[in-house]
Amino acid sequence: MMRVGIVGASGYTGVELARILAGHPDIHLTVATSRQYAGMPLAEVFPNLRKRVDVICENLPPEELVDRADFFFTAVPHKTAMDIVPMLLAAGKKVVDLSADFRIRDASIYEAWYQEHTSPHLLSEAVYGLPELYRAQVRKARLTANPGCYPTSVILATTPLLRAGLIDPSTLIIDSKSGTSGAGRSASVGSLFCEVADGFRPYKVGGSHRHIPEIEQELSLAAGTPVTVSFTPHLLPVSRGILSTIYATLTDAGKAADLHALYAETYRDEPFVRVLPAGALPATQHVRGSNCCDLSLIQDVRTSRLIVMSAIDNIVKGASGQAVQNMNLMNGFPETTGLMGAPFFP
Amino acid sequence: MMRVGIVGASGYTGVELARILAGHPDIHLTVATSRQYAGMPLAEVFPNLRKRVDVICENLPPEELVDRADFFFTAVPHKTAMDIVPMLLAAGKKVVDLSADFRIRDASIYEAWYQEHTSPHLLSEAVYGLPELYRAQVRKARLTANPGCYPTSVILATTPLLRAGLIDPSTLIIDSKSGTSGAGRSASVGSLFCEVADGFRPYKVGGSHRHIPEIEQELSLAAGTPVTVSFTPHLLPVSRGILSTIYATLTDAGKAADLHALYAETYRDEPFVRVLPAGALPATQHVRGSNCCDLSLIQDVRTSRLIVMSAIDNIVKGASGQAVQNMNLMNGFPETTGLMGAPFFP
Amino acid sequence: MMRVGIVGASGYTGVELARILAGHPDIHLTVATSRQYAGMPLAEVFPNLRKRVDVICENLPPEELVDRADFFFTAVPHKTAMDIVPMLLAAGKKVVDLSADFRIRDASIYEAWYQEHTSPHLLSEAVYGLPELYRAQVRKARLTANPGCYPTSVILATTPLLRAGLIDPSTLIIDSKSGTSGAGRSASVGSLFCEVADGFRPYKVGGSHRHIPEIEQELSLAAGTPVTVSFTPHLLPVSRGILSTIYATLTDAGKAADLHALYAETYRDEPFVRVLPAGALPATQHVRGSNCCDLSLIQDVRTSRLIVMSAIDNIVKGASGQAVQNMNLMNGFPETTGLMGAPFFP
Amino acid sequence: MMRVGIVGASGYTGVELARILAGHPDIHLTVATSRQYAGMPLAEVFPNLRKRVDVICENLPPEELVDRADFFFTAVPHKTAMDIVPMLLAAGKKVVDLSADFRIRDASIYEAWYQEHTSPHLLSEAVYGLPELYRAQVRKARLTANPGCYPTSVILATTPLLRAGLIDPSTLIIDSKSGTSGAGRSASVGSLFCEVADGFRPYKVGGSHRHIPEIEQELSLAAGTPVTVSFTPHLLPVSRGILSTIYATLTDAGKAADLHALYAETYRDEPFVRVLPAGALPATQHVRGSNCCDLSLIQDVRTSRLIVMSAIDNIVKGASGQAVQNMNLMNGFPETTGLMGAPFFP
Repeated sequence: MMRVGIVGASGYTGVELARILAGHPDIHLTVATSRQYAGMPLAEVFPNLRKRVDVICENLPPEELVDRADFFFTAVPHKTAMDIVPMLLAAGKKVVDLSADFRIRDASIYEAWYQEHTSPHLLSEAVYGLPELYRAQVRKARLTANPGCYPTSVILATTPLLRAGLIDPSTLIIDSKSGTSGAGRSASVGSLFCEVADGFRPYKVGGSHRHIPEIEQELSLAAGTPVTVSFTPHLLPVSRGILSTIYATLTDAGKAADLHALYAETYRDEPFVRVLPAGALPATQHVRGSNCCDLSLIQDVRTSRLIVMSAIDNIVKGASGQAVQNMNLMNGFPETTGLMGAPFFP
Repeated sequence: MMRVGIVGASGYTGVELARILAGHPDIHLTVATSRQYAGMPLAEVFPNLRKRVDVICENLPPEELVDRADFFFTAVPHKTAMDIVPMLLAAGKKVVDLSADFRIRDASIYEAWYQEHTSPHLLSEAVYGLPELYRAQVRKARLTANPGCYPTSVILATTPLLRAGLIDPSTLIIDSKSGTSGAGRSASVGSLFCEVADGFRPYKVGGSHRHIPEIEQELSLAAGTPVTVSFTPHLLPVSRGILSTIYATLTDAGKAADLHALYAETYRDEPFVRVLPAGALPATQHVRGSNCCDLSLIQDVRTSRLIVMSAIDNIVKGASGQAVQNMNLMNGFPETTGLMGAPFFP
Repeated sequence: MMRVGIVGASGYTGVELARILAGHPDIHLTVATSRQYAGMPLAEVFPNLRKRVDVICENLPPEELVDRADFFFTAVPHKTAMDIVPMLLAAGKKVVDLSADFRIRDASIYEAWYQEHTSPHLLSEAVYGLPELYRAQVRKARLTANPGCYPTSVILATTPLLRAGLIDPSTLIIDSKSGTSGAGRSASVGSLFCEVADGFRPYKVGGSHRHIPEIEQELSLAAGTPVTVSFTPHLLPVSRGILSTIYATLTDAGKAADLHALYAETYRDEPFVRVLPAGALPATQHVRGSNCCDLSLIQDVRTSRLIVMSAIDNIVKGASGQAVQNMNLMNGFPETTGLMGAPFFP
Repeated sequence: MMRVGIVGASGYTGVELARILAGHPDIHLTVATSRQYAGMPLAEVFPNLRKRVDVICENLPPEELVDRADFFFTAVPHKTAMDIVPMLLAAGKKVVDLSADFRIRDASIYEAWYQEHTSPHLLSEAVYGLPELYRAQVRKARLTANPGCYPTSVILATTPLLRAGLIDPSTLIIDSKSGTSGAGRSASVGSLFCEVADGFRPYKVGGSHRHIPEIEQELSLAAGTPVTVSFTPHLLPVSRGILSTIYATLTDAGKAADLHALYAETYRDEPFVRVLPAGALPATQHVRGSNCCDLSLIQDVRTSRLIVMSAIDNIVKGASGQAVQNMNLMNGFPETTGLMGAPFFP
């Protein structure tokens, strides 16, 4: 049994990590940190975990933390992650970091979108933890940067096209819609039930969302050329789920290609990526509670554009599920352990 | 008091017409037809109307219908409208038709997207009932074709740009999200609570939604050149509301223009169009229950694209509210009568 | 035009007062106070009010407040109301207070459930503002204590039975369910979308909710004997609406009576109380956005119990709508002015 | 690997059975019947099951059905179950029936609430499949009658009290609230999203819901005396979840007892019943997607009443999860296999 710790257990990614890990036969959750709830059982903070998770929240000084587990998830805000991860690595632990701090390979880009990076030397070592793209590297990683939720939905949806030169990358427009759990669990008026329920709205429109550099980094690598995208996030009145609707103009190669076959082939052996039958469309309610990413492609012959759609559960494949998938790879467990539950519907 | 009839009162646009008309001081709702609920008070079919609406549903032969009111709303499916409207006009009545049957000026385009048109002679007479564009014509109309919900949200959002040549029309991509009332009140598994709630999905992707010819007709007129758009509708887990996120590449003129000032100026005197302060973004929960259309423009300087967003209540400004606005214009009532209620929030 | 002020305009009852008053032809909203949003247009705090409400939030010292309006709504928390209302009255203004501070006639009971009362002399003067019970007194009141949301739903539902001795008051059990707007607009984790959505839970179970003394005061007056009730509130995943399900054992007189006729008769001329046809059941979605209270009675012959059900919109008839109804009565306006809008459905 | 069949796989209990069974290591789902979707993969009917469930829907004549599996779930409407179950038993198969047909021990009571019973001889053999009460009997059963959703929530909540004589059974009032999945997947206007969302309503008030005889049967057995209850179901705007709020007057023994200790003791070793810490209250969002039943007791000293609250997921512990729990018991698998997943939150 590997001893696992969650640093920052009292947010929505923390409770979801604990939920998933409770069904993982090869690990034991030995430590969960929370400043706010120190001393309280995690199952009292999140009563869904009662009789399933017995860890007590602690507010530990870093030096005590490292002795308490063999593997760590850091589920803390960016900047805070940068302050903790180097110490965990120095103590010989492996880490999956769920923040943005180690996702951007180029420190100057990170600093343009976030703030100064205090551990830039780790950026070249950190592996971008999208197993479908970087499985081999994740297996060997000490530090995996768990992808953002929106980027996961976008990169899985477009990489095969970009690699094969089937779309014009300069035409990429990404219209994404996310459930409210993506806003986290801190008390703010904008996330109150009455502000969100029975409504829908865009936010951070016009190229300002911090997931943009992460998306562009990976799409540029796939395209072999710098890619700049239009990305518009929206807030859905649901707790879980991201649906991205992605538009791009097909190249001549793209018009001639069997795109569905390409996707079916690319993701055939992936346990968590489901390329829908031709004509079928994804829905967040069909991936809810699971580590699945559903993909669909539809060609608009009137405009020579392709529309790619992807659906994930933002706190599973978009966060905690993918983090456990990475943990499995980094530690030699079967990649799907604890993650094969089918989505919940209804 | 003008006597008003609703043909097809038992759908969601019917009940909303009845609700709005109940607060209109210059009319009396004298007849409401419904095959299914004939003999039942409309306020029993829709208990929200109790003590406010006293009309009884009837299943009337057309010849009796015409004597019972001076003005008619036809809130029936397309094709059925074509069968009824000519008779009402022939009897000297004015009509606002909420179906698609008289929205498309070119019968061949109508027939390509719908079916044979049995009254093509009325197409040139029918006025497209978007008052902000066609107010003068609506005032004189016998027959007003009430716009579709998606088209209303799109046309108000983009016409000023197209008229002024500020965007490249060939780059128009419209990503729209609608509440479930748009699917109507007929019993179908896909509209069940458990299928829609806590989820989100696209539908009719790739250029197949029947609102496309209507959108393209009006945008082409605005642009002075044929416009073909990409249009993707999605289903929101809310009852009311449409939010359209519209992408287009700015022309050089567009990059140089003060777009916010253009919109503020264009819609300054419109009682129902609200151009948001620069930087503010629309939300369906801020137009809910009202005849308002909220508009916002954000420029993405990284991609030279403009993002225009519009929010309406799909069964008010997108259907019944706009229909009453048209009725007011056609009959010399103040345009805003019965329609000035502020949106509900929360 | 009467000048009206709202003290505490930035909560959900504040925005709803502003929305309703925007449709009231006899008043002008001249002042709205908010510490947090001072200097900001109320329509920027609540964008639903754009182009409908033009008041600017202010943080005014009391002495300036009194000159700015002829009539005041105090929509502030209890205790704060006590500090403001006496000053407004002293300046010759009439007030509808939406807090609990003047609802309880007996200061010692108020103090047992809340805190010390600093203006007990006003308790005998304040009129409990349920117009269906106290219309004549409200007309003459300087200070009206606007009823709580739960009490409104309970008192209208049970008073006719208690007055006529048709139920045994000692058997009264009230199971109430409220929308989340009742929790107010302050940022708290428990009111976040993700905590409330797609769920349901009781709170303050076992006789601890502060609406209990208010309910018992009015039911005791109706019964002519002290009444103690079991009252359990629950939190619904909706923004608006209260449904109370009330159980009581019928007396012999109650078993013999025509209860539906009694209710139909009692509320026949009430514009806002709708006694449903026998067998029909209320639903919060049928009163949403309106000042209506829907009532239904069903007898359970197997247990000799009566079940009374009532539905209101908690921030209209349960707060701001009833407050405007009281304002109308206190100032000689028609009681229904601004309040006759039919509920929204769907 | 035991071969398992689902008769009636295309309803919400069917898809949930398939979802749970997909994670069960000891069985293989070999047959799923559906008249409507015959020939279609079940994962196409319910796309959440893609890449997890590979069974094809079939419309099989009974004689073919029996050869295709060793164990059957019948998830068909009452009456239909009666027609199929005897044949399955006759072929030597074990069955968990999810309908009401074998829950009522007394055929005359069944016939008073439902219709004629065509297999009354099976009623004495059928075991009421609430494992917490009848575990030993279920282990030996050929035919288990899976309890109704409301009865599960009520019986687990009250049996310890009734067995120990701590409440007066004649005072039992049960106010239950259920998610909409309980209404099934058939297309009906009343279950449309727009009819249910953002609302709340009671139904079948006054002693008419068919779960009443089932509740009374089990509570009478627990009390050792005939029990008649008031039971009011309500419809929640959520897909999953039942919360029952149960009122009863304490006997003198009840007032003196440590009720929380009694419950903690009674359910200590139950894997799926969670007695909450004193003062904590259940919430449907804390059992969502799991086989858990959360229980809480609060005493109202003002009225000498006890309020017991229970929360379950109506299609897991209230249907398909409990059915798998019974299957496990009937076949010697560990009782919790496939069922230990923690609830989803948020």
